[in-house]
Amino acid sequence: MSRSPGRKQENYKISRELFVLTYGALVAQLCKDYEKDEDVNACLDRMGYSIGIRLIDDFLARSAVKKCRSYSETADVIAQVAFKMYLGITPSVSCSSATGNEFSLILDKNPLVDFVEELPAERASLCYCNLLCGVIRGALEMVQLAAEVSFLQDRLKGDAVTEIGITFLRKPEDRKHRR
Amino acid sequence: MSRSPGRKQENYKISRELFVLTYGALVAQLCKDYEKDEDVNACLDRMGYSIGIRLIDDFLARSAVKKCRSYSETADVIAQVAFKMYLGITPSVSCSSATGNEFSLILDKNPLVDFVEELPAERASLCYCNLLCGVIRGALEMVQLAAEVSFLQDRLKGDAVTEIGITFLRKPEDRKHRR
Repeated sequence: MSRSPGRKQENYKISRELFVLTYGALVAQLCKDYEKDEDVNACLDRMGYSIGIRLIDDFLARSAVKKCRSYSETADVIAQVAFKMYLGITPSVSCSSATGNEFSLILDKNPLVDFVEELPAERASLCYCNLLCGVIRGALEMVQLAAEVSFLQDRLKGDAVTEIGITFLRKPEDRKHRR
Repeated sequence: MSRSPGRKQENYKISRELFVLTYGALVAQLCKDYEKDEDVNACLDRMGYSIGIRLIDDFLARSAVKKCRSYSETADVIAQVAFKMYLGITPSVSCSSATGNEFSLILDKNPLVDFVEELPAERASLCYCNLLCGVIRGALEMVQLAAEVSFLQDRLKGDAVTEIGITFLRKPEDRKHRR
């Protein structure tokens, strides 16, 4: 199932509902496959990673975004361009560390959970949307930015907002530079 | 993971690529889970069915389509309204039986296989997009139309086009009427 090299860049959009329900089917299947929530979360992250490393080409081609000059600019591009393009929403961004490498994306609404009211009691540790973290991590890695990406808050778990944390892992030369 | 009854009907669109890659991850996971292609196909069909019986509400609300008066009209609505709405394509429709209850949807392009070049040799019987058949079957059942839906041709398998066959199963009163 390799990628077709001759694929045309076609920019048409689809309705979100089929995607949201298909994503739900994927999560449900993984919940059948894995007993532990942690294993489901890890699998979603891995799948997302594989998607992210492929999606980045599409993103760069269609967004025409230039190289970002700072972590802050990168976080803004993820929120304002990538989320808008792929999920139709624009999370707000905040920098959550004095060292300037930790950011939070705050999602007021999360289209992926449109058909989900709450997690079943026996799945309390499930990060339902963990695929997104993997996608971001994979895409960043392809532009030479290592990052840890995880859900810090989740409305599905009763939190007030849904928050994705991105911690850019400083390169050795960054650390050297700071000393 | 029950559906939220208070969910707003929001009509915004998303980019197709994330959906297509997520669908690919789902199929890949099922290929891990099931050795036989037939089992993967059946699972995709079941998942699609579950999606179809939920998606029909969204479709009826947003399309404002009225009750169809014939199988032919129903097939046209599936191709021209539903496919357009959810996948951004419009298959052509042909009636393939003298009895007027068998139709073919011909997809010149199939957005779901955008990132797929060909099926691996060991997965020659995989109906990669079988979820779609389940979705159509499930949605039709919710409007009291029993149907069999399956792929008759698939470009992924070397056929010239991708063709989905829909056979409406006549109700007992239809049969009686015909005699």
